[in-house]
Amino acid sequence: MPSEASKPVRIGLLGHGTVGAAFASLLADRAEAVEAATGRRPELAGTLTRSEGDFGAILERSDLVVELMGGTDTARDFVIDALRAGRPVVTANKQLLAQHGDELFAIAREAGVQLRFEAAVAGVIPIVRTIQESFGVTEISKVFGIVNGTTNFILSEMAASGAGYDEVLARAQELGYAEADPSDDVGGADAAAKMAILARLAFHTSVTLGEVPFEGIEAIQPDDLAYAKELGLSLKLLGIAERRDGGISVRVFPCFLYSGHPLAPIEGPFNAVMVEAPAITEVTMSGPGAGGLQTASAVLGDVVSILAGDAPVHETRAELPLVADLPSSFYLHLEVADRPGVLARVATVLGEHEVSVKSVVQRGIGADARLVMVIHECLESRFAAAVEALGELDDLRSAPRFIRVIEEEF
Amino acid sequence: MPSEASKPVRIGLLGHGTVGAAFASLLADRAEAVEAATGRRPELAGTLTRSEGDFGAILERSDLVVELMGGTDTARDFVIDALRAGRPVVTANKQLLAQHGDELFAIAREAGVQLRFEAAVAGVIPIVRTIQESFGVTEISKVFGIVNGTTNFILSEMAASGAGYDEVLARAQELGYAEADPSDDVGGADAAAKMAILARLAFHTSVTLGEVPFEGIEAIQPDDLAYAKELGLSLKLLGIAERRDGGISVRVFPCFLYSGHPLAPIEGPFNAVMVEAPAITEVTMSGPGAGGLQTASAVLGDVVSILAGDAPVHETRAELPLVADLPSSFYLHLEVADRPGVLARVATVLGEHEVSVKSVVQRGIGADARLVMVIHECLESRFAAAVEALGELDDLRSAPRFIRVIEEEF
Repeated sequence: MPSEASKPVRIGLLGHGTVGAAFASLLADRAEAVEAATGRRPELAGTLTRSEGDFGAILERSDLVVELMGGTDTARDFVIDALRAGRPVVTANKQLLAQHGDELFAIAREAGVQLRFEAAVAGVIPIVRTIQESFGVTEISKVFGIVNGTTNFILSEMAASGAGYDEVLARAQELGYAEADPSDDVGGADAAAKMAILARLAFHTSVTLGEVPFEGIEAIQPDDLAYAKELGLSLKLLGIAERRDGGISVRVFPCFLYSGHPLAPIEGPFNAVMVEAPAITEVTMSGPGAGGLQTASAVLGDVVSILAGDAPVHETRAELPLVADLPSSFYLHLEVADRPGVLARVATVLGEHEVSVKSVVQRGIGADARLVMVIHECLESRFAAAVEALGELDDLRSAPRFIRVIEEEF
Repeated sequence: MPSEASKPVRIGLLGHGTVGAAFASLLADRAEAVEAATGRRPELAGTLTRSEGDFGAILERSDLVVELMGGTDTARDFVIDALRAGRPVVTANKQLLAQHGDELFAIAREAGVQLRFEAAVAGVIPIVRTIQESFGVTEISKVFGIVNGTTNFILSEMAASGAGYDEVLARAQELGYAEADPSDDVGGADAAAKMAILARLAFHTSVTLGEVPFEGIEAIQPDDLAYAKELGLSLKLLGIAERRDGGISVRVFPCFLYSGHPLAPIEGPFNAVMVEAPAITEVTMSGPGAGGLQTASAVLGDVVSILAGDAPVHETRAELPLVADLPSSFYLHLEVADRPGVLARVATVLGEHEVSVKSVVQRGIGADARLVMVIHECLESRFAAAVEALGELDDLRSAPRFIRVIEEEF
């Protein structure tokens, strides 16, 4: 609820690496939108970097603390101090939560302040919020998926190219999908930390990193992928947390999926998570696994949730005109008389309207002849004029039929 | 924050059809979980059915109102009365919001109470919460997807069977995927109402149903689907809301997608929605489109959000043991000496350990002979014992390699 006199909310930022810098920049970009959504304009109260800033002074000046420094020692101390000082905390630090979750959540509860961490799991996919809030009282039976983009990129590349693990890892490092020391990702520890967090949320029980057995992908051989292809299987590094025999099981391991499985088509540096429960059947969410801006965006979402509190959620803040005439690609189906020159006459009409053909199928003879084509993207009004002109040709045995096409090929 | 003296929260339920009844039952089932999550035990303050109950009396007794009666006249009056009386409202009524959103949101804002409506769009997929909260300050460029399960079922069936629209519609009605009067679904009006709501949330601007042009699927011919298959296309009824030329466009129409598109594999009565923004790239969410229990579950999620307010979000409330030995299916790769009886000896060892083979590929000769198989699900400890025994065979030229397989075929 914006008001002119609204007090700014001061954010203490701990860490200024890739994600920290992206967050600072995003926060500045979106400050107005945050104010419109929450009634409070955010501003940085201070930034703690490796070489500059004093945590105590920043905490003193902050209403809310964002921890993006990583590590589990100093970060733990600072998060605890912030919570005890009554400051809500947003963190993207999966190892911190997977190793010290019990302690941190207990301190947040005692202090009566929020500790949010959407960015710690599955990048920009809002899986933490979904499990905690949408399905917060749902009896979840299973949460599983691809929660490490580095390994998914490597496995996709190995399968597609037939190249070996070392070669593909080097390529992933060049492209920035794998770190210089990739061991946490490729060994499965990163995914295990994320699954410990998801299991805790889904089953409302304490799960720590040490309790999650994990395997990585270092030992995968190209010929395993080749044989698997023959068997109709594709390989993913999966994290699985599920109820079993009155308890739970939480594990990370490379795993083959049959081609119809919802996770089988997830390729490249993407993440995808499925949640299963009797009351919801299943929900699947996918998106890019990481990236500085994407992670910063998830952090900002948490900041906004804390600021919004339990305010009425929706407010319009723009008046945008509706645009009617748009470019689109089309499927066009013509029933035509089977006589010489039909295709030429149809093509001429389309050309006169600057409508261009992407692909065409000509089929049938005599009374059943058809021209079926896909038209490249053009303004709908122009396509409509072309269709009207086609309708006047003697060659057509019925009115043209058309259906839009999303031309974008993924 | 549960406490023994916590005051129950009284919920007034308007409507007792499929979803209303499912909600009443789910609320009773999950009352303890709601109390654990929010500190307040929910109880029904009264239910308004077509024949029983008095709205004024129910409102008087309620802390929160759940509107599941449908329609846009009486429902509108009741929701307005509840909001003005300071009661947060949860509704699944997409037509109400698409037609009277401006008015209702303004009243909620004035009254300072929440109006939540996750169940109004895309069933159990938490798309409303994701757009409003996770991406609430993100500059969303496009929201699009399959938001009507009835039409997606019909189009999937027509494509798979080659049957005509009328025949498949009748089948959908038999299976309960289409209503006796299916016109709102198949004509596109239902999807248009949902897209009006999503566009409003994504772009923070007023969009009403009357502004959304929509087309349905009644005119789709089986041979369009057949030709399209040749062109590598599959047909969906899409809703698209996007920024265009300084304004927005919101539309619903049947549309072909190329096979690599993330929405192309969504078959049957499912919904799927994609959100695109520079800061998040893209996120895709999919799940069942409707069902009484699924819709009730989304309603309950909203109720919990209102009750939880800005409380610290995570609390453990169970101690669940970790189960270690689980059943799994396996891919097993053996490099074997190419001599008579190898397969028999391997099969014998597996059989002795009650490990059964689902499929096998035997390949290569001489020094490069391989046996690659998929093993049916069995306890991992039993499989490990079998692998150990295999390792003792003279026939193996290297240690057995194995990778888990999710046997479930979708």
